[in-house]
Amino acid sequence: MASTEGKPITCKAMVARGPKQPLVAETITVGPPKAGEVRVKVITNALCHTDIYTLDGHDPEGLFPCILGHEAGCIVESVGEGVTSVKPGDHVIPCCECNVHAYFMTAIASSFLLQILTSSCVCPRHCLFKSSLLLGFILAFCFQTPLSGQGFMPDGTSRFTDQDGKPIFHFMGCSTMSEYTVLAEISCAKISKELALEKACLFGCGVSTGLGAVWNTCKVEVDSSVAVFGLGAVGLAVIQGAKMAGASRIIAVDINPEKFATAIELGATDCVDSSKLDKPVQQHIVEMTTWGVDYTFDCTGITSVMRAALECSHRGWGVSCVIGVAASGHEISTRPFQLVTGRTWKGTAFGGFKSRRDVPKLVQRCIDGKLPVDHFITHKFDGVENTNAAIDALHGGKCLRAVVKY
Amino acid sequence: MASTEGKPITCKAMVARGPKQPLVAETITVGPPKAGEVRVKVITNALCHTDIYTLDGHDPEGLFPCILGHEAGCIVESVGEGVTSVKPGDHVIPCCECNVHAYFMTAIASSFLLQILTSSCVCPRHCLFKSSLLLGFILAFCFQTPLSGQGFMPDGTSRFTDQDGKPIFHFMGCSTMSEYTVLAEISCAKISKELALEKACLFGCGVSTGLGAVWNTCKVEVDSSVAVFGLGAVGLAVIQGAKMAGASRIIAVDINPEKFATAIELGATDCVDSSKLDKPVQQHIVEMTTWGVDYTFDCTGITSVMRAALECSHRGWGVSCVIGVAASGHEISTRPFQLVTGRTWKGTAFGGFKSRRDVPKLVQRCIDGKLPVDHFITHKFDGVENTNAAIDALHGGKCLRAVVKY
Repeated sequence: MASTEGKPITCKAMVARGPKQPLVAETITVGPPKAGEVRVKVITNALCHTDIYTLDGHDPEGLFPCILGHEAGCIVESVGEGVTSVKPGDHVIPCCECNVHAYFMTAIASSFLLQILTSSCVCPRHCLFKSSLLLGFILAFCFQTPLSGQGFMPDGTSRFTDQDGKPIFHFMGCSTMSEYTVLAEISCAKISKELALEKACLFGCGVSTGLGAVWNTCKVEVDSSVAVFGLGAVGLAVIQGAKMAGASRIIAVDINPEKFATAIELGATDCVDSSKLDKPVQQHIVEMTTWGVDYTFDCTGITSVMRAALECSHRGWGVSCVIGVAASGHEISTRPFQLVTGRTWKGTAFGGFKSRRDVPKLVQRCIDGKLPVDHFITHKFDGVENTNAAIDALHGGKCLRAVVKY
Repeated sequence: MASTEGKPITCKAMVARGPKQPLVAETITVGPPKAGEVRVKVITNALCHTDIYTLDGHDPEGLFPCILGHEAGCIVESVGEGVTSVKPGDHVIPCCECNVHAYFMTAIASSFLLQILTSSCVCPRHCLFKSSLLLGFILAFCFQTPLSGQGFMPDGTSRFTDQDGKPIFHFMGCSTMSEYTVLAEISCAKISKELALEKACLFGCGVSTGLGAVWNTCKVEVDSSVAVFGLGAVGLAVIQGAKMAGASRIIAVDINPEKFATAIELGATDCVDSSKLDKPVQQHIVEMTTWGVDYTFDCTGITSVMRAALECSHRGWGVSCVIGVAASGHEISTRPFQLVTGRTWKGTAFGGFKSRRDVPKLVQRCIDGKLPVDHFITHKFDGVENTNAAIDALHGGKCLRAVVKY
């Protein structure tokens, strides 16, 4: 790899030219990493619904043309000036976190704080003003991907150029639907080489989000009850996390009963096909549990399901967590009485994990056999250009994760 | 008082004959307390908006004719069989808690658990199944007023009879707009005789609710920031509680600037007249605090204000607490993104206090000079029949608490 160091690399990438259009396989140029940046070779790319959400035009802030992809396993090709935490040959998981970081960063970019921020992954405002809550904040929002939501690298420029010499936008600080991409150093979680990147990549977004919602955001405890709405990869990860946390009752809810077998295998104790009920699903669950469930999780992105999840959480102490990303303009609602009677409504981004610190630990747990993830990989493809086929598989509804070898 | 023991008492009461009608001064009969009950002489009755809410017909579960009133200071006249925790002459505050208890109780009443419940104030389901959360639960919902929402005493009958011999409904287990009333023993918080009942009665509902929302439900900590929407008695109690908890910035919001002087006196550092803004109040507060407020409290009962309170709580960790009671059918709503970015939406009933245990402590703090309440009493009246004048005062908008001496 030494021969490409400091030079542009020409490679294949899938370019999203506009919303609701198939990705286009193009030859692009990936510039060398600047100071504080890392260029990586993408080995495997897993599809997450957030990619599709943007590609399908649901994200009002989606920028085109762009290179999507944010759940990937990569090997460092070269590093820019000042990069010390990773070196060529290291295995890394890009840290996508959430687009919301960009909003913070926009606010900060104009201030004197930017210098501090881009060289660390904690937010100085909170160091300065909120020290007592700092740990919680770091867990919740680690600011690892400054400016990622703006379609650029932290310095405000792109590393991608198309064949006409025009720039292509970055996506979530990752843009892994390319044979090569450039990441901010603080967006690289260095992991053990013992786990195949095909599996490790799953910890880059959905699976970690589900596990973290259970362990960090809600802190589900031994012998508690849990209900999970939506049995995609995130929902199944919630079940897996809840089982590991010792939950004694885990209610899996979906409108597709074909998903129940895997849910039961992972630890679900009850399955509810909400399409077959003659009453609202929240009422059904309150009845089957006497008074509701200790912790509920929405993994659908559908606002009426988020409401149902809140309303079947237990009076007095129930906590409901929104994980799914809702379509633009859709709002959640409920009677305030639901809160006054002791329920708490929360949400999570990346499950409250701090990626650089926590993803390597998750990978290690997987290596140790304590956190199996094979069941998430339902579809495999080979070659960048087959990314569209992977997208079709995800649209098909029977796919948890389609992993593409690049 | 011994002469009335075991006999009916004839006295004056204000009877709510129907929604949206003035209360009627009537002579009623108050039956002797049955087993587990306590008959009390009402010395002072303070008006709370929940009384008015029901009288104005906003409570779809309001029952008429009834005797309203639930924030009062009383002296025990006689006790029923088996009552041991209070005796004639004791000063007590009726524990109203919240109508919601009745729902639990209805579910439980048909079960074998009723016997346990009526002789204690913890819920056996939670003792049995949820021991790890028991303390939190007791704080949040102590079940001190079984069946109060059904308009009857726990045995399903009324102690009130009108001049035609017809029964009158109880209200919130208290019905203190009468010279005498009957309470369940477990609804009596025995307090020190050192504090005048005119002041002590304030701890029966609104003031305790505001303090408890800060101390118990949200656990506001030293140096945090707080925003309070609505500067009635509950909102001012929130300010007072936040100041005592060491909050360094307390933003008071109302549409009536006349309320700001008291707010500042109690500890508000900023006052916002939301009627004078050219932008949504949440946007204004986010701007004036850079990124929002650590803890926000709605004390208005207006669902759009509840939304504003949530949306100006801080990204990443802000907690917003609904205290106000919304009109029937009104719903809260927001973008789920508000939760996904780390905000928590909660609610509180009676501030999470367990009345019998905590009200005596609040009263003692007041006696010790650490919790002044004089500023809440803006209007005083004399005689049961002047309760309507007190209601008019509360409707006038300049009244925090109108206390009527019975």
